[in-house]
Amino acid sequence: MPVRKMTPFVLPVPVTADQPSLQDNTADLDRLRHALGLKLLAVDTAGGALGVRPLEIPFARIVPLCRRFRQAGFSGVALVNDLPDRWVLADFLPQSPGRLPAMALDLGTTHLEATLVDLLTGQVLFSAGRENSQIEYGADILSRIHQATSVRRQMREVVDLSFLDPGLAVLQQSIVACINALIVELASGSGVAAEDIRALSVSGNTTMTHLLLGLDPFHICREPYIPMVNVIEPMESRELGLILHEAAPVWIMPSAGSYFGGDLISGILASGLAATEQTRMLIDVGTNAEVVLGNRDWLIACAGAAGPALEGGVARMGMRAAPGAIDFVSLDPETYALEVRTIGGAPARGLCGSGLIDLVASLYLARIIDIRGKFRDPDQESDPARAAFMRERLVERDGQRAFVVVTAEAGDGDEVLLEQIDLDAMIRSKAAMYAVLATLVGQVGLAFEDLAEICVAGAFGNHINPQRAITLGMLPDLDLSVYRAIGNSSLQGAEQVLFSRSARQECLDIVSKITYVELNVNQDFMIRFSGARFIPHTDPTLFPSVPLFAEQEEGAAESLKTKG
Amino acid sequence: MPVRKMTPFVLPVPVTADQPSLQDNTADLDRLRHALGLKLLAVDTAGGALGVRPLEIPFARIVPLCRRFRQAGFSGVALVNDLPDRWVLADFLPQSPGRLPAMALDLGTTHLEATLVDLLTGQVLFSAGRENSQIEYGADILSRIHQATSVRRQMREVVDLSFLDPGLAVLQQSIVACINALIVELASGSGVAAEDIRALSVSGNTTMTHLLLGLDPFHICREPYIPMVNVIEPMESRELGLILHEAAPVWIMPSAGSYFGGDLISGILASGLAATEQTRMLIDVGTNAEVVLGNRDWLIACAGAAGPALEGGVARMGMRAAPGAIDFVSLDPETYALEVRTIGGAPARGLCGSGLIDLVASLYLARIIDIRGKFRDPDQESDPARAAFMRERLVERDGQRAFVVVTAEAGDGDEVLLEQIDLDAMIRSKAAMYAVLATLVGQVGLAFEDLAEICVAGAFGNHINPQRAITLGMLPDLDLSVYRAIGNSSLQGAEQVLFSRSARQECLDIVSKITYVELNVNQDFMIRFSGARFIPHTDPTLFPSVPLFAEQEEGAAESLKTKG
Repeated sequence: MPVRKMTPFVLPVPVTADQPSLQDNTADLDRLRHALGLKLLAVDTAGGALGVRPLEIPFARIVPLCRRFRQAGFSGVALVNDLPDRWVLADFLPQSPGRLPAMALDLGTTHLEATLVDLLTGQVLFSAGRENSQIEYGADILSRIHQATSVRRQMREVVDLSFLDPGLAVLQQSIVACINALIVELASGSGVAAEDIRALSVSGNTTMTHLLLGLDPFHICREPYIPMVNVIEPMESRELGLILHEAAPVWIMPSAGSYFGGDLISGILASGLAATEQTRMLIDVGTNAEVVLGNRDWLIACAGAAGPALEGGVARMGMRAAPGAIDFVSLDPETYALEVRTIGGAPARGLCGSGLIDLVASLYLARIIDIRGKFRDPDQESDPARAAFMRERLVERDGQRAFVVVTAEAGDGDEVLLEQIDLDAMIRSKAAMYAVLATLVGQVGLAFEDLAEICVAGAFGNHINPQRAITLGMLPDLDLSVYRAIGNSSLQGAEQVLFSRSARQECLDIVSKITYVELNVNQDFMIRFSGARFIPHTDPTLFPSVPLFAEQEEGAAESLKTKG
Repeated sequence: MPVRKMTPFVLPVPVTADQPSLQDNTADLDRLRHALGLKLLAVDTAGGALGVRPLEIPFARIVPLCRRFRQAGFSGVALVNDLPDRWVLADFLPQSPGRLPAMALDLGTTHLEATLVDLLTGQVLFSAGRENSQIEYGADILSRIHQATSVRRQMREVVDLSFLDPGLAVLQQSIVACINALIVELASGSGVAAEDIRALSVSGNTTMTHLLLGLDPFHICREPYIPMVNVIEPMESRELGLILHEAAPVWIMPSAGSYFGGDLISGILASGLAATEQTRMLIDVGTNAEVVLGNRDWLIACAGAAGPALEGGVARMGMRAAPGAIDFVSLDPETYALEVRTIGGAPARGLCGSGLIDLVASLYLARIIDIRGKFRDPDQESDPARAAFMRERLVERDGQRAFVVVTAEAGDGDEVLLEQIDLDAMIRSKAAMYAVLATLVGQVGLAFEDLAEICVAGAFGNHINPQRAITLGMLPDLDLSVYRAIGNSSLQGAEQVLFSRSARQECLDIVSKITYVELNVNQDFMIRFSGARFIPHTDPTLFPSVPLFAEQEEGAAESLKTKG
């Protein structure tokens, strides 16, 4: 990733104007505009590339600006919003502020993560997160779009609602209140006033962005899947009802389509994918598995429904990576000693994605499940130690086998189970993931071995053990050094645009450069998906590092025959 | 005046975008921005001088724009506000409108005049005027500033009012309501909806501009007389609470100082003063006499308190040029037949400026008043016919002589009188006017004979007879063809900026080019003022066309001695 010069979203500019006199009766605002304009001209001229940008002074800012300028004795520090095609004068301070707080927000469908940063130093002042309050109106994107267009749907699409759909208004108010609560938390946590937060950047998927901005999401989920807006100019915080400084500019990460949102553009930015000569891959597992492949010359992307099982959205005992989630499992294939670790050491409440992958990979290596991801029958087991372990841990629930990960006694009254239905979903997800990666790489005529790096984003990326994911055949069987966990890249991208004009420009460049591959209609993907529904794969030569077991090879061959 | 190309303040731009499809899933707004951007690029490239301007889409416009664009089938006409440094997308129509109404407003201290024009054809659709409703809060600028800063004055200047001064809020609301009433009148008069009016331009003096925009006028009348704003970027109509289309851009004529307002910049624009090689003069008589001298290379201006008597602000029987105002008087110096004409033929209610000038010049030529502007004594009169006329018309009121212009019988019960006190004010005003003109011309080393044209603006310019003004020594004794009455140039300038980008640019150029001469501290002016307090002047050789009377020459000489 290139090191970027600090060119913050809000630039403090020292300004000292001449004092008014009978000989110089320039008006207050004209005096400020003139003195500031000369400074900004110098910035633009030094910067080169963008050319000289006009200075805009919003009408609503004129009275407070003139008052503060005059009270400061016509000398102080102007705060100027640095927008792609113009400067916007936001405020005037009597002296340089000690710090200039700005907020970066990852606006997830289920969860919001935010950091408060200091634009002067780059320092992180505070971090906080909270559940997306819109969950009350629908857990997923589709049900929220349904909710946001309720009146419109009743009135049929042809009716031009001249008002905001009440459903949309409710969702918008809900998320604005949720963000405002987060602002309060950041402000009190770092000892600043909310109105002293001078900028905001938001990474969210296309639907979440529409719901925040009060834009109609009706066509997002209807063919040909057209968002109302992909690229939007920064607006002022007050236009969204946020409790930041009212002239704080809000940078909304642009999206590239209905199913390729600003969160992923943020990820591309943060991973530096579009900035290097080498071809690399970014995998972001959220509700979907979103994958981007490319370099500084080209970018190709797709999304597949690989995510839910991995993020805890499908397995009955699945959950987000949060306290009480099992994020690490090991099972000794000789002694059958089972070790389980939870986030924060709290009593186990369920399995997060990495815990699930660890568990299933361990069950495979210990031969508790077969190549198809089915629990084996303890009665058919010849190894007595394994048979004993299986009898101890495998139980019958609703007529299906299930594995007891944590017993009720150990788990503070709650047992944690892995049921066959969860295992099946997990296998489908891992198959979809591998098929997505293989299809995308194949699409540009490359092999996995050609990739310089595979960045794995999100909580998923932070917690999974790539070796275990390879064992399952979820990730390609490459040297482990190829994999890099990059954390919450949606939030990181949002932070980067706060500090760097070239990062803001790069977001727009990424949008215009990206090619999106639709997998739902892709024949190649469907074939690869079928082949990947075994552990590690129907073609084990693709996974030379994964142990093979003779009886399972037979089972696989048999299964393939019966499936025909 | 140069003929300008039609480059209206709001430009209709036909746009036909590609239809969305699975192959082209560009978002609605991005689709519109792209298609429109190409058209605007062509406009800017053809225009040359200004360079390529960015296209701004205000956040509040996005939802209605996208809805209308989609409903029109992605093809129609975009309405784009043409601002000096950027384009602003205001609306989208399914097809080309039949007309594109815009409003020009002369925002006078006492009176508002407006026209509704069609930006497509240049045609005037309707005109209307009404009294400035702020008169209720103060007849003149100073008392309105007093009213607008009432809370601030109580709290002392040092207090930073974080709120709008309630006094200012009241004045602002009053004038906004007054303009809205005018909008209703224009709209119903021309059969358009108020929200179909797409632009507004406003010419007003600096204080009126501040009161309309809610800007603090406190320092305008306090040394060193600094306005809050001289040059202001166009704002949207909704930001002022006007009932035009909410995204209609409002052009506020820039001012050059506290006492050199946008109304006069408008006058310079309309007269073409700053556009020709020849040096010309503009005289605008309102509450002040404002005078500008210059050509396309330089402009020099001053204002003097010459106005009130001429506009009806001082004489007890003085009034605006309105129905019932005497605007024309003739008195035969042989037969003493007195002829009086009123505006609209209504019963006489008073004298407007031109009527006053006619009357005083006639009284001088008929030798009813002397060179000092004093009523002569009928008992000292040797000519019997004149003595008889004087006895008939001269009456005593409050111990002072007065001339009966219209008798009570003729005047429908009300007599119209010219009192000595009015005459004295008139003489002071005409002396001030001449002194202003002479001082300004002298300041740049020119003589009156060097002027190619003298434009006389306003109702005053329309009604006065330059020959009569010369007789009084108010205007220089030049060939009458030099004088040109140009009407309400404040309103005309406002109309011009609606139609022409170069006119809008010229306003800004005029402001940066103008030099203002302060007369209150000018010794040259004071000397010239004293010399001009006689009819026509203490130096009659300056007025060769005006008849001189022997006894009056003696009187003048005597008066000079006694005053000397």
